[in-house]
Amino acid sequence: MAKLHWEDFTPGRVFEHGPRLVTREEIVAFAAEFDPQPMHLDEEAVRATMLGGLSASGWHACCILMRMCTDGFVLNSHSMGAPGVDEVRWLLPIRPGDELILRATVQEVRASRSRPDMGFVKFLFELRNASGAVAMTLTTSLMMGRRAAGAA
Amino acid sequence: MAKLHWEDFTPGRVFEHGPRLVTREEIVAFAAEFDPQPMHLDEEAVRATMLGGLSASGWHACCILMRMCTDGFVLNSHSMGAPGVDEVRWLLPIRPGDELILRATVQEVRASRSRPDMGFVKFLFELRNASGAVAMTLTTSLMMGRRAAGAA
Repeated sequence: MAKLHWEDFTPGRVFEHGPRLVTREEIVAFAAEFDPQPMHLDEEAVRATMLGGLSASGWHACCILMRMCTDGFVLNSHSMGAPGVDEVRWLLPIRPGDELILRATVQEVRASRSRPDMGFVKFLFELRNASGAVAMTLTTSLMMGRRAAGAA
Repeated sequence: MAKLHWEDFTPGRVFEHGPRLVTREEIVAFAAEFDPQPMHLDEEAVRATMLGGLSASGWHACCILMRMCTDGFVLNSHSMGAPGVDEVRWLLPIRPGDELILRATVQEVRASRSRPDMGFVKFLFELRNASGAVAMTLTTSLMMGRRAAGAA
């Protein structure tokens, strides 16, 4: 299958990927390395807090989302990375046993003014759990290679 | 040392942490798990691209920043997590051998309208490399526990 160019990302186009099971072991391993707060490490410590039980670090959720994007469409595209992230919202805790579905919706596209070989694709990414509730949203623009002028 | 409350985060206050050495091994290991694009995995594949050599995933940079925050002040505070991230900008590639310094500056504070036991602290986080250049900025608001009314 030919890799996707900037021109293939038309506003409204949707990519889905998943489900992706989240395990207790990876929640704790990620937190121990990158976000060692009790809410992500210690089931007993968080039972009485507003979270009510162990939950994944929000950064872990971002990384899981990135991997689902990579497997879902990025490796099948002429992606050139991203200049940053516009907004992340952690709406619901992600728990051991959750099965996450990624939905990536193209919101806007624009050509690069300085680089005719690439353009920007603004996405809304949503991670939903098995009950369909949106646990996280993320918006950002990816840089994508364009078709050569005159190419099919 | 008493843990920091919301009232201790006054606008302009700065927390620094580091240096934190970034290794080739961890760049590749992180990318293999969460962001398996060639620019983060394969030195040869990226030499001819605009990056000019292996660089850490931007998400890896976020995770390193989170760990530096955790060690720098979050575990010594009444942190209650964050509702999300307002903005991330990846300004320079982070390379094997970089030694990163975190600078966290309190930008604004506001009390929670719905929860008198907590408030929000908006931070500008900057990761600089050894030459002092800012490789990444991140802005977000953390939720912090407040001192009990009437406490010292």
